[in-house]
Amino acid sequence: MKVYVTGPRTDIRVPFREVTLAGDGSAVRLYDTSGPAPDGPAVGLPPLRAPWVAERVAGGTQLRFARAGMATPEMEFVALREGVPVSTVVDEIAAGRAVLPANANHPESEPMIIGKRFLVKVNANIGSGSGTSSVDEEVEKLRWATRWGADTVMDLTTGERIHETREAIVRNAPVPIGTVPIYEALERVDGDPTRLSWELFRDTVIEQAEQGVDYMTVHAGLLMRHIPLAVGRIAGIVSRGGSMMAAWCLAHHQENFLYTRFEDLCRILAQYDITLSLGAGLRPGSIADANDPAQLAELRTLGELAWVARRRDVQAMIEGPGHVPMHKIKENVDLQQEWCREAPFYTLGPLTTDIAPGYDHITSAIGAAMGAMYGTAMLCYITPKGALGLPNREDVKAGVIAYKIAAHAADLAKGHPGARAWDDAVSKARFEFRWEDQFDLAIDSEAARTCHDEALPVPQAKVA
Amino acid sequence: MKVYVTGPRTDIRVPFREVTLAGDGSAVRLYDTSGPAPDGPAVGLPPLRAPWVAERVAGGTQLRFARAGMATPEMEFVALREGVPVSTVVDEIAAGRAVLPANANHPESEPMIIGKRFLVKVNANIGSGSGTSSVDEEVEKLRWATRWGADTVMDLTTGERIHETREAIVRNAPVPIGTVPIYEALERVDGDPTRLSWELFRDTVIEQAEQGVDYMTVHAGLLMRHIPLAVGRIAGIVSRGGSMMAAWCLAHHQENFLYTRFEDLCRILAQYDITLSLGAGLRPGSIADANDPAQLAELRTLGELAWVARRRDVQAMIEGPGHVPMHKIKENVDLQQEWCREAPFYTLGPLTTDIAPGYDHITSAIGAAMGAMYGTAMLCYITPKGALGLPNREDVKAGVIAYKIAAHAADLAKGHPGARAWDDAVSKARFEFRWEDQFDLAIDSEAARTCHDEALPVPQAKVA
Repeated sequence: MKVYVTGPRTDIRVPFREVTLAGDGSAVRLYDTSGPAPDGPAVGLPPLRAPWVAERVAGGTQLRFARAGMATPEMEFVALREGVPVSTVVDEIAAGRAVLPANANHPESEPMIIGKRFLVKVNANIGSGSGTSSVDEEVEKLRWATRWGADTVMDLTTGERIHETREAIVRNAPVPIGTVPIYEALERVDGDPTRLSWELFRDTVIEQAEQGVDYMTVHAGLLMRHIPLAVGRIAGIVSRGGSMMAAWCLAHHQENFLYTRFEDLCRILAQYDITLSLGAGLRPGSIADANDPAQLAELRTLGELAWVARRRDVQAMIEGPGHVPMHKIKENVDLQQEWCREAPFYTLGPLTTDIAPGYDHITSAIGAAMGAMYGTAMLCYITPKGALGLPNREDVKAGVIAYKIAAHAADLAKGHPGARAWDDAVSKARFEFRWEDQFDLAIDSEAARTCHDEALPVPQAKVA
Repeated sequence: MKVYVTGPRTDIRVPFREVTLAGDGSAVRLYDTSGPAPDGPAVGLPPLRAPWVAERVAGGTQLRFARAGMATPEMEFVALREGVPVSTVVDEIAAGRAVLPANANHPESEPMIIGKRFLVKVNANIGSGSGTSSVDEEVEKLRWATRWGADTVMDLTTGERIHETREAIVRNAPVPIGTVPIYEALERVDGDPTRLSWELFRDTVIEQAEQGVDYMTVHAGLLMRHIPLAVGRIAGIVSRGGSMMAAWCLAHHQENFLYTRFEDLCRILAQYDITLSLGAGLRPGSIADANDPAQLAELRTLGELAWVARRRDVQAMIEGPGHVPMHKIKENVDLQQEWCREAPFYTLGPLTTDIAPGYDHITSAIGAAMGAMYGTAMLCYITPKGALGLPNREDVKAGVIAYKIAAHAADLAKGHPGARAWDDAVSKARFEFRWEDQFDLAIDSEAARTCHDEALPVPQAKVA
């Protein structure tokens, strides 16, 4: 059952999934990303944050307010949601160790925070290619992703309905929406990356900003001098945005315009309070390429750019791999935290081996859980079909659940306050044969019910 | 394609799966557990090891020969299989850091080794309850498990066809077979653990030993003084064998007979060269109970018993959890290695959170991969339905593949010689668009083919 906890002002209403236990009538409250019940894709969700945005007549980003020591309603909201003092939220955002992605033009979103002191978050990629699915289907995929626990959703739609699809997704999204604007810019030059330009990119960003996109991936850290470092790789440049910018640089013999015009970009993003997600254009695409000079050189640049963004009041997080064997994950997270001054790390997986195409959700959940334990703040899911394909409904569910497991396992390992209460409630219910309680508490009640018969512990298990 | 590499004597023929690449015609050889093609369950596999066993007229265990500095044909076989010098195999077995489970009465098995210096191994549990499936179905499940890469199989069959099923499984098993003899002993006393006795247990062990069981789980480390330590647990005693022995001790006010008659047991096991798997009767069954005093007290006793076993020439490994949050996995493995003098650690998972019943293969693959990176030698799979149920065919495949991924990720992290060649071959094939090579190399070629369309990298990915 969904319940709301009211904050210091009555229009701060934080949703939780509350499970009332048959055992002793006590209630367990769980983080809930599913959002209000929609009235249909065409109507959109209620504009929860509209009054809060309206009150900030002079604008200003969450980072700017945090630096001034002011707690916005969004910060109050996430403090209640995470069960931490609001001062922690203000401090972490002010220090750049956390981001609260909330475009002023996306009032429908329920505030959430990304940072290593908070619950580990999960992003789900959705989107359709040309004519592969309808706008309504993508909205349904968005709701499906948040129903299973996605904390943010990236819309990677391409093709002729790109603007219309994004509009429908943002209007129906109870979570922050991310995009990769260079994908849309590329469509405007018919897929030829050498025809990209700052002006074209800027116009794309502004259009998406007006629609309410909360965070944008920008591959500004891939520099000309980094490209030769990737030549000896087994898998080359696997990031789509990274390979576009590398192609542009090589064709024009000029530095990446996303880098040279970075301050201009920040000025735009600050107006909307869009969070930068600094793209890992040189992330490794195979185990052999992990933590190599190309990846690490770009990471240093991303750290510099995050610093520049903060000076401009723009919240920033750093994207990461990809493919990393287990013994190199800690090194990667540690270097990111050092070089990027603890800016939130947002990684794709990483996959811990290349041998299992078709099982990428499992291969990468291992790496994602470990990375999150070491400090990665948000995990971009990888579906069974891998990072590059656009997922169908079943892929979305499989990916989100595998990643919620990884995120929660990391919350436990980090000792996040309250994380273990969920596990303990499930285990107590199992030990006491309260099956319905166990199902109701499970991350996927339906799957737990299906497995009921085979999960019966033997009676002797209660001897002690 | 299956190929065989011949050893120092022509009757040592080590199987590999060889994949010839369309790219440059080179061949990649992969570890292969599938065994010879069977002539049908009633016929059984050819007795590969019969001449080797016959040559050892005075008997003797692999441990005894290793201590004498002698390489048996089985040791030569595993050296070729693992790509290491035979001296390493001899040394590791002699030191008790590795076991080579090979009952003299199971000549059909292809030798394999379990130890932290070698490839991480995966066990699959199979077995049927009373009348739930036929003997042929269980043999088919065994072949299915080894087809996907199970290195050993435990037969947990109960019910009236227990002897017949085990016989069929052993005769058709190209891998070592493990059992938990106390389960069968319990059936002989109509399910009442208080009626168990050393004599009944001994007779059960001898019957199974005669059939050719290669390793046996024995819960000899659960002592009377440990039982009160488990009283305050959230999940009590979840090990079936552990709860039986606890019930027996409490009913009789006597010490566990598996402990008091341990030397008698070792004398029997040595005659057949059966490997002891010292059961974790007090393994934690919830995150809350991980690494608690009950678990650790038993672990110390298991270490003492492993030492006793070795003195009697009996190979021994140590079983472990269960449920352990990520941050406590290393501590668990480190204590096991210290207290058990580096005897091979064989763990069930562990699950890293309790919130996801129905997804236990993923929840536990995370813990299994980490444990193996820290030194766990063999991983007992957990299927999506969990540890306690008997799996169907699809569960077996899902469990084995999740665990082969975990094991291989750990092989990479440990730098096992040759492990990365497999990943590199897959990644090179992907980068060069050699789709058929990528499918042929994948751990599950069929799944990889299914995902083909969505795994297509964009052409720009080749720029560097």
